[in-house]
Amino acid sequence: MTAPMSPPILAFGEYAQGQAPLPSWNEGSAKQSIVNFVRAVTTAGGPQFVKPEERIAVFDNDGTLWSEQPMYFQLAFVLDRLKAMAPQHPEWKDNPLVAAVLAGDMKAVAAGGVRGILELATITHAGMTTDEFAKIVQDWFASARHPKFNRPYTDVIFQPMLELLAYLRANGFKTFVVSGGGVEFMRVCVEKIYGIPPEQVIGSSIVTKFEMVAGVPVLTRLPQLDFMDDNVGKPVGINKHIGRRPIAAFGNSDGDLQMLQWTTGCTGPRFGLLVHHTDSAREYAYEASSMGKLDVALVEAKEKGWTVVDMKQDWSRIYPFEAGK
Amino acid sequence: MTAPMSPPILAFGEYAQGQAPLPSWNEGSAKQSIVNFVRAVTTAGGPQFVKPEERIAVFDNDGTLWSEQPMYFQLAFVLDRLKAMAPQHPEWKDNPLVAAVLAGDMKAVAAGGVRGILELATITHAGMTTDEFAKIVQDWFASARHPKFNRPYTDVIFQPMLELLAYLRANGFKTFVVSGGGVEFMRVCVEKIYGIPPEQVIGSSIVTKFEMVAGVPVLTRLPQLDFMDDNVGKPVGINKHIGRRPIAAFGNSDGDLQMLQWTTGCTGPRFGLLVHHTDSAREYAYEASSMGKLDVALVEAKEKGWTVVDMKQDWSRIYPFEAGK
Repeated sequence: MTAPMSPPILAFGEYAQGQAPLPSWNEGSAKQSIVNFVRAVTTAGGPQFVKPEERIAVFDNDGTLWSEQPMYFQLAFVLDRLKAMAPQHPEWKDNPLVAAVLAGDMKAVAAGGVRGILELATITHAGMTTDEFAKIVQDWFASARHPKFNRPYTDVIFQPMLELLAYLRANGFKTFVVSGGGVEFMRVCVEKIYGIPPEQVIGSSIVTKFEMVAGVPVLTRLPQLDFMDDNVGKPVGINKHIGRRPIAAFGNSDGDLQMLQWTTGCTGPRFGLLVHHTDSAREYAYEASSMGKLDVALVEAKEKGWTVVDMKQDWSRIYPFEAGK
Repeated sequence: MTAPMSPPILAFGEYAQGQAPLPSWNEGSAKQSIVNFVRAVTTAGGPQFVKPEERIAVFDNDGTLWSEQPMYFQLAFVLDRLKAMAPQHPEWKDNPLVAAVLAGDMKAVAAGGVRGILELATITHAGMTTDEFAKIVQDWFASARHPKFNRPYTDVIFQPMLELLAYLRANGFKTFVVSGGGVEFMRVCVEKIYGIPPEQVIGSSIVTKFEMVAGVPVLTRLPQLDFMDDNVGKPVGINKHIGRRPIAAFGNSDGDLQMLQWTTGCTGPRFGLLVHHTDSAREYAYEASSMGKLDVALVEAKEKGWTVVDMKQDWSRIYPFEAGK
């Protein structure tokens, strides 16, 4: 049997004129639930119609739009930065988390979770201007490679989710990233890979300070956590930034639970979805990982009728670089 | 001499097909500087062309988009709330600022500036959910009247600025409010009066907390300042929220100085503008007011070539409800 031609890879998952939406989604209840929801809220005069300006969709990033194994991409960046900067910072030896990194003890690092990463991020990502930081991140994305696929991290993004973003936008939705990752880390690449502009990215942040330096205005990054956009922080960040309740939320882990609760826990048409990592061959299979743990949110998904995507069953293609089935 | 017909009042300052932009702006250097800038950045192939996604314009609110005399509109709201809530809060008597309000000592209140208002806002605007707060603000806007014009505060907005917002949006700009005012106070009305959606409003905020109450997700407002979006806070807020440097900034007071410095202090085409309140008959004339003080920013405007609008000279109409000249 000959494999059919793969659909062409289009920017941001756009599909060709006349092509059905969500081509990398296999027919099944997950795909159908998305299409049904979008039809319901866009049918003018229908009982579930939602005005375009209220069609807000929020997406977690790590594990939802791109992979998060064998470690969060930003953690790979942090480790590279730590190693590069360590010779200038002998005092870091007193920090057990930093010592673990330098000793190559990845188990101890992983056990620190998102908060541990943010601690490491805080010390390695401060003491420079916002422009300087963006340049460092940009250079890293240009040179670093994902260990499993030996490709730039920005290639290791989910083709079906790109198609979903495109499908929602084509139906009048405004799409936002709402991630525990650092907002200034993500903004360097999200516009290019997802078609989401920087002003639609919500993330964790450190404190910045405005000052005039020799007549030039700069924002300097300080080693102090400003906001932690994870768990209970996600609805807080959404409210602070968007000021409007989303009607659809997409996540993959317990860190997304409150975002899905906030999005779906009110009257009116609402949609919640969890990506379940079940494909050890093409991606990874996990639930109990220290990164992207999925436990209580999976139980609650069943109670509340959120869609659960079985990556192995529901997606005919995982990555843009992979040939379609 | 008979006055010519007033142009029709259109929502958000939109102008009729075929009508020249900025109809309430008199011909002169201020209007010309705006038109020249917009032409330069939108001329494809020209030396100053800016891609649409980078056409970010930021607007202060108090004194720039709506009036701020005889007091910030939010301060009028705060005072009304304080008076309504005081009987249930005997402990407020120990707070000198609250005592001043209840004694009607507006001088003492005004001397507290934006920080004083935020202190009062913090104690009166907390202890409820975000939805409850929005309802209180909505009810207040529906019933309160501006003392000079005896009209809803949402009528006391500048017609020429509505036209400017419309003109910029018609030329591919994305318009944001960046104000010292409370973000959840402004968001109740900005979409309706300016055509700016809530996700494009940056302001001061208090801390909110996510919790499930009897199975229902709520965000509760706590009596603790989260972010102060004024002076040096404006570039910080812009960077945190938009993540892209604006190319045009519009303000009216020293509190907008850093926003204009940040916007214009780099290479590439940039535009800064200050509204100078010079019309005591149709609006107010002031520079040294405790609200909207304009001093160092006016000096810097001359040094840096920012446009200064003389309201009396440059605007043929101030408010939408006022007949054009």
